[in-house]
Amino acid sequence: MSKLPILSQRHIDPRSYPPGVAYMDGQYLPMQEAKLSVLDYGFLHSDATYDVVHVWKGAFFRLDDHLNRFFRGIEELHMSIPYDQAQVAEILHNCVALSELRNAYVEFICTRGTSPTFSRDPRDAENRFIAFAIPFGSVANKEQMEHGLHLAVTDVLRIPPSSVDPTIKNYHWLDMVKGLYAAYDQGADTAVLVDGNGNVSEGPGFNVFAIRDGVVSTPDTSVLLGITRQTIFDICAGLGIQCRTQDVSVTALKAADEVFVTSTAGGVMPVTKVDGQPVGSGVLGTLSKTILAKYWEMHDDDTLRDVVPYPEAAEL
Amino acid sequence: MSKLPILSQRHIDPRSYPPGVAYMDGQYLPMQEAKLSVLDYGFLHSDATYDVVHVWKGAFFRLDDHLNRFFRGIEELHMSIPYDQAQVAEILHNCVALSELRNAYVEFICTRGTSPTFSRDPRDAENRFIAFAIPFGSVANKEQMEHGLHLAVTDVLRIPPSSVDPTIKNYHWLDMVKGLYAAYDQGADTAVLVDGNGNVSEGPGFNVFAIRDGVVSTPDTSVLLGITRQTIFDICAGLGIQCRTQDVSVTALKAADEVFVTSTAGGVMPVTKVDGQPVGSGVLGTLSKTILAKYWEMHDDDTLRDVVPYPEAAEL
Repeated sequence: MSKLPILSQRHIDPRSYPPGVAYMDGQYLPMQEAKLSVLDYGFLHSDATYDVVHVWKGAFFRLDDHLNRFFRGIEELHMSIPYDQAQVAEILHNCVALSELRNAYVEFICTRGTSPTFSRDPRDAENRFIAFAIPFGSVANKEQMEHGLHLAVTDVLRIPPSSVDPTIKNYHWLDMVKGLYAAYDQGADTAVLVDGNGNVSEGPGFNVFAIRDGVVSTPDTSVLLGITRQTIFDICAGLGIQCRTQDVSVTALKAADEVFVTSTAGGVMPVTKVDGQPVGSGVLGTLSKTILAKYWEMHDDDTLRDVVPYPEAAEL
Repeated sequence: MSKLPILSQRHIDPRSYPPGVAYMDGQYLPMQEAKLSVLDYGFLHSDATYDVVHVWKGAFFRLDDHLNRFFRGIEELHMSIPYDQAQVAEILHNCVALSELRNAYVEFICTRGTSPTFSRDPRDAENRFIAFAIPFGSVANKEQMEHGLHLAVTDVLRIPPSSVDPTIKNYHWLDMVKGLYAAYDQGADTAVLVDGNGNVSEGPGFNVFAIRDGVVSTPDTSVLLGITRQTIFDICAGLGIQCRTQDVSVTALKAADEVFVTSTAGGVMPVTKVDGQPVGSGVLGTLSKTILAKYWEMHDDDTLRDVVPYPEAAEL
C-alpha cells in the first residue's frame, strides 16, 4: 500500500478573482472569500434562482423591478430567505458601498442550499442567500459597441418552458454554452438559440430585438422577461415607436433593417451582422442609436435610481 | 448616510456538512472546507460535468466505466483537466482512503471555472477539477427498499437532447425538482419525467425499468446512459432475461408487472406504486428481487472492483 497524502486543514486557492464585495451569512467579505460548499444544491442541481442589477454612476437602476422578479422566483421554487425586499436592498447597497465601485454588476442569489445529512429531498435543505458586487461588465466590448456584434443563429433549442420556466431567472446555461461554441466556430461573437417552433428565442444573457420598417419586435415566449427588455418597451412607448412582442422567425431576423440585443450587463447592444451577412446597411441603425442613447439618459431619472451610500472618501 | 457594516476577512460558515474528504487544487480537505468561488461558471452557468461512483465494502464498483463517461463529457464540453484517468483514479482512491469510509458516494466534477476578469467567453476560463467522498447514500431509504417506492408520473418535460445532451452527465435539475414537488403534492416518494413524445424518460438521479411478461424495458433516448442501467443489461444477459431499450409509454409503465429504478446512489430500487395505483400485485416482484440480489452479488466480482488503500487502522 502506498503512503497516503496528508489532509490539509484549509483550502489555499491559487486563483485570482475580480475585486468586489460579497454578502453571506451576515458577513460582508472580499470577493475572493465568497465561497459556496460544493455540496450546495445550487451547484450540484443548479437548484437556484438569481437576479442581476447594475449600478451606474453611483446609483442602482430599476432595483425594485429586479427585486420583484427575484422574490417571485424564490416563491415559485418553494424556497425562502430570512430577508424581505427592503433588507435585500440594504444588503445590496452595502455590498456596493463597501466595494466603492461607481459602476457595478450586482448579483443576488437564492440556492436550495444544503442539509447536514445530504438528503436528496429538497424540502430538507436550508436555503442560502448570497449577494455580490463586482465591476460593471458587458456582453459587448467597446469595439463591438461601436461597430456592432456579429450574431450567429444556431440550431440549439433553448431549454423549453415545459421543462424549465424561463421567467424564473436560472443558471441552466449548457444550451447557451453549446450555442456560443457553435458561434465561435463560424467566427461570430455570440449566439442566439431557437425555440420549439424554430423561431428566435434568446442568447447567453440577452433578449433579441429586430426592427423592420420602423416597427420593433421581440420574442414573447421561451425567453426571460428581461428588465432591460421592459425598459425598451418603455422607451418605445415614450418615443411613439411601435413595439410588439411576437414570434420572430429566423428569416425575419435576417431580413431586419436593424437588430440589437439587451441585457443588464451592457444595456442596448447593436448587432450589425447575422450569420456572416450584414444587417440592413451593415452599420449601426438610426433607431437603435436613438433607443441606446435614451436608455443611458434614463439612468438620470430619479424615479428609477437608488443612490448608493458610499463611504465619504469614495464619493465623487 | 447610515454607518456601513464592517468588511470581514474570512467567511464563518454556520452550517454542518456530512463527513468526508474532498480534493481541490492539489489539496485533500475535510468536506466542510471544500468550497467553490461563487463566481465559478460551474455554479453561475451550471457549466460543468461530473460523475458519481460508489465504494462498497472497501472497493470501487465499475470505476473505469465512470471515468470513461466523465472524460468523454469533459471533451464534449470543450474542457480540460491536468490529470489523466489514472491520476483521477488515484485522487478518488485517496479521498476514500483518507475518509476511512467503507461505503462511500464519490463524486468528481469538472467545472468551466473562472477567469480573473470575469470574462463571459467560456474559452477564457480556467477549468476546475473537484472530487469528494462522503457516506454512501441512496435514492430509496430502508423502508422504501423493503416495500417499494411510490413513483409519480409528472407532465414535466425532461430537458430535451436538442437543448442539453443527457448523455453528458450534468447538473440541470430544475425540471427534476419541479417533478419532485409535484410528486410530493400527490403523496408519492419521487417522480419520473416525460420526453417530447410523452413517454417515460428518467427521474431525479435514476433510470426507470418496466417488466411485462418477463421482458425488461427501459427508455433509450432522453436519458442518461447510467452505469447501473448498463449493469442491469449485463445481469439480464447473464440470466437469460430479455431486456430491451425502447420507448416506454406511460400506459406501459402503469400496466407493468414490475417496475424498478436504478442509480449509483442505491443500485436497484423497487417501485410498487405508480400514481397511487399498485404495480402488479403491489409487492416486490420476483424478477426485480432476482436482479437486485444479482446486482449486489456482482460487487464481489474482482474484475469490477478496485480496492481502496485504507490506512492500516481503518482496515477491517
